[in-house]
Amino acid sequence: MHLNLASLLERAAALHPSRIAVVEGDLRLNYEQFAARSRALAGWLSARGVREGQRVALLDRNSSACLEAYFAVARLGAVLAPLNIRLSARELAFIVEDCGAQWLLAGPELHASVRALEAQSARTAPILWLGQAPSGGPAGASYGEALEHPPLREVARTPADALAHLYYTSGTTGRPKGVMLSHQNVWVHALAAVAELGLSDADSWGHIAPLFHLADAWATFAITWVGGRHVVVPHFDERAVLEAFERERITITNLVPTMLTRLVRHPGADQRDFSSLRRILSGGAPIAPEVVREIMRVFRCEYVQTYGMTETSPYLTLSLLKESLRDLPPQERFVYRAKTGRTFAAVELEVVGDDGQPVPRDGVSVGEIRARGPTVTSGYWNRPEETRAAFEGEWLKTGDLATIDGEGYLQIVDRKKDMIITGGEKVYSTEVEHVLYEHPAVLEAAVFGAPDELWGESVRAAVALRNGASASEAELIEFCRARLTHYKCPRKVAFVPELPKTGSGKIQKSVLRSLA
Amino acid sequence: MHLNLASLLERAAALHPSRIAVVEGDLRLNYEQFAARSRALAGWLSARGVREGQRVALLDRNSSACLEAYFAVARLGAVLAPLNIRLSARELAFIVEDCGAQWLLAGPELHASVRALEAQSARTAPILWLGQAPSGGPAGASYGEALEHPPLREVARTPADALAHLYYTSGTTGRPKGVMLSHQNVWVHALAAVAELGLSDADSWGHIAPLFHLADAWATFAITWVGGRHVVVPHFDERAVLEAFERERITITNLVPTMLTRLVRHPGADQRDFSSLRRILSGGAPIAPEVVREIMRVFRCEYVQTYGMTETSPYLTLSLLKESLRDLPPQERFVYRAKTGRTFAAVELEVVGDDGQPVPRDGVSVGEIRARGPTVTSGYWNRPEETRAAFEGEWLKTGDLATIDGEGYLQIVDRKKDMIITGGEKVYSTEVEHVLYEHPAVLEAAVFGAPDELWGESVRAAVALRNGASASEAELIEFCRARLTHYKCPRKVAFVPELPKTGSGKIQKSVLRSLA
Repeated sequence: MHLNLASLLERAAALHPSRIAVVEGDLRLNYEQFAARSRALAGWLSARGVREGQRVALLDRNSSACLEAYFAVARLGAVLAPLNIRLSARELAFIVEDCGAQWLLAGPELHASVRALEAQSARTAPILWLGQAPSGGPAGASYGEALEHPPLREVARTPADALAHLYYTSGTTGRPKGVMLSHQNVWVHALAAVAELGLSDADSWGHIAPLFHLADAWATFAITWVGGRHVVVPHFDERAVLEAFERERITITNLVPTMLTRLVRHPGADQRDFSSLRRILSGGAPIAPEVVREIMRVFRCEYVQTYGMTETSPYLTLSLLKESLRDLPPQERFVYRAKTGRTFAAVELEVVGDDGQPVPRDGVSVGEIRARGPTVTSGYWNRPEETRAAFEGEWLKTGDLATIDGEGYLQIVDRKKDMIITGGEKVYSTEVEHVLYEHPAVLEAAVFGAPDELWGESVRAAVALRNGASASEAELIEFCRARLTHYKCPRKVAFVPELPKTGSGKIQKSVLRSLA
Repeated sequence: MHLNLASLLERAAALHPSRIAVVEGDLRLNYEQFAARSRALAGWLSARGVREGQRVALLDRNSSACLEAYFAVARLGAVLAPLNIRLSARELAFIVEDCGAQWLLAGPELHASVRALEAQSARTAPILWLGQAPSGGPAGASYGEALEHPPLREVARTPADALAHLYYTSGTTGRPKGVMLSHQNVWVHALAAVAELGLSDADSWGHIAPLFHLADAWATFAITWVGGRHVVVPHFDERAVLEAFERERITITNLVPTMLTRLVRHPGADQRDFSSLRRILSGGAPIAPEVVREIMRVFRCEYVQTYGMTETSPYLTLSLLKESLRDLPPQERFVYRAKTGRTFAAVELEVVGDDGQPVPRDGVSVGEIRARGPTVTSGYWNRPEETRAAFEGEWLKTGDLATIDGEGYLQIVDRKKDMIITGGEKVYSTEVEHVLYEHPAVLEAAVFGAPDELWGESVRAAVALRNGASASEAELIEFCRARLTHYKCPRKVAFVPELPKTGSGKIQKSVLRSLA
């Protein structure tokens, strides 16, 4: 069987030619224009020798050109490797070499990163600038030239399991690994997301979280599939994002918790008109119930907690409410909304104990989540050993620890490697963090283990306080003691201006541990 | 990659255990009970030697046991061959032999058909009666025995392209052919249908059209996927169906046009409470706009025209309204609603002329519809030649002639083989039939060509009149002449009490032609 993601753009161009497809500032493209630009880019790359199976790296902030590149590279049957723009030059150079990129598509704003990347590389890929070639920047072609190329209308007949994307995991430890996603992985995920979230041609998706990360990138395909609108927000700035919600009548988006926290705490956020919003999705990192409450209060729309991994295209669970739970009192409904969620339509999940058997569905017993199905990666690029280690038979081991309740809702309690064992007792950091988030002075909190001669590990916390708020270490420890069993409470609390995070918004506990 | 349709039942049993899954008369099963019965049936069949890849035939009116059998046979990795209960004993015997069925699952009501089938067969399959073994009927086990078997919880890890179903086409000419559908074909179709129709756990699907036909059978998987309710209606009786709509609060169903015509014209139909209905789908045969108007008036819900084939799992188009058409005046909106529809989410369609090139999207130019994608069959069981003839490269030739308009909506004008050429002019029977349906005395109409020495073919019509209505041949011909170009008008009109139809409700024009 053949599948190619570029067919989704052809579908939209045929069914919705004059409907607005992409909005980026003053730029508005309808689906015919969007498709025409993507076909021209494909023609340009094809004329420069890009062939089926070859890799093309992409380094840009969110832009309409990113969306065009996703479909152009798929059209050729080539493989897109989106790069995290916040990585160091060394990491970027490593990835470009690791995937053997034939071309680098780069945003002109990032010319300094590109120069630094080149300085780190033994071999450099030719550059297409996704805009005007920057004066004084590394040499490369301009996007205008590519867009004037005769279009390539043909879509490569790639086998369903042909590689479409390489997403390098942000690599909290060790060298980045390229997660291989096939056309089928991404295609099935997009269709399942349309089904789960009821996406349609009436939707406007806010591309606000980084498009180089799957938390947002999957929507490129799902929204195009249904002929919806892509609203591209290039930089995360609270005011600009809140204004985009109002001005572009965004109906749905998936943000990372740190973005949501910053948005809802921005002065005047709760005075704005969010009536177009039907769903706010949060994903990419855990979120505390206290923050969920604020999000629901400010945005006044349905809140959906998502959980997933790059390796699973990405969704594994959504906290959508089952029909049978809709009549519960608001407080009980909220419990499910704020949970990690129930299994996404296109995967099978299990929560298994150390014995490899599913844990009881009691909302208390903790096990590791594993996943299988058509949205799960076949493994890591050129890393047979790491691939083997990630799987148990067909099951991908997520490394996430969770409970599952009688309704089938999962609650992640910790990353397996972040779980703390102190005096022989297991402490799941999420439980402690959720309590810290309840303290009015706390903006962000992370709980982790530090080596301890007596206890093996001891519980530590790092906290960023809200602007103008204050709290002492003793006060926060006391706050925890009033709400948690003694051994779960932090023994030390460090105050930081901001917690260290990966490009996708995950808090880097490994950094906190090494600082401690 | 592995996929097995039985996983969808496991998903529902895990997520919605105590939710009602199946209603059939007084029988109500929740998802845990439904899954338990299907697992027991699988265990029973497994204990009797049914293995991966083997065929199991199913002969029953709509029943909860049919639904259980669909999932039980899939669980084993075996292949279900649902039989059209209206076929002759000779045809049934041919199919059971052609597919080499290891077992026959049969409804006790159909014991006479089973006896006749056995009398026609050189080799007979053992029988499991889907109820009490009929006294005096052919020997076989009783369903109660199978349901008491220890459950088989394991789901076979079938490759995605493993055969799941053999649907024998109703065979208007020649011997029936088994359309091969894989787990993936049916799985992707079900997911795409959930996405397109917004199916959810709040839906109750009316299994009213025959479950041995894909127009209804696809919903077995889609509705289970989302944890919705299956309302099984065993016999088509206007009053019983209308009562089931009200009593079981059916929200959505797919009926064939002849059923819809009979329902909306049933006395008092427009006085009933259809407030639960959100969508009525029509498919399996063409429908006249005049009938669509009546359906919308009586059911007062959204009407969706569907078009598909057994070979495509089945949907190819749906007449769902695009967002950009929703603001049109009602009359213009209606034009799109009553059309054959726009491309279904999971396939690619083209309307190509004799030169193999897409026809202009002008709503006038006629070409043949062809389809490709993950819901398209790989071919016919043991019929390499007929399989080759059905495809042009990857494209399945549908044999249906259609126009496509600027909005991407198709309108079928005829089966390729039913198109009439009279005096060198092409006449598409649908256009003439739609005019006949506008006549108040006409209940059903079919237009076809009969050999004619002078003109090659001449246009003929067969008409069934409404109860108590009358119209003469001359009057109907005159009615057409006032509305159509002269050469398109029937030269003769035959009056019949009912038009001959296949089990799925398609009018058998081959029968009309041979009678003429």
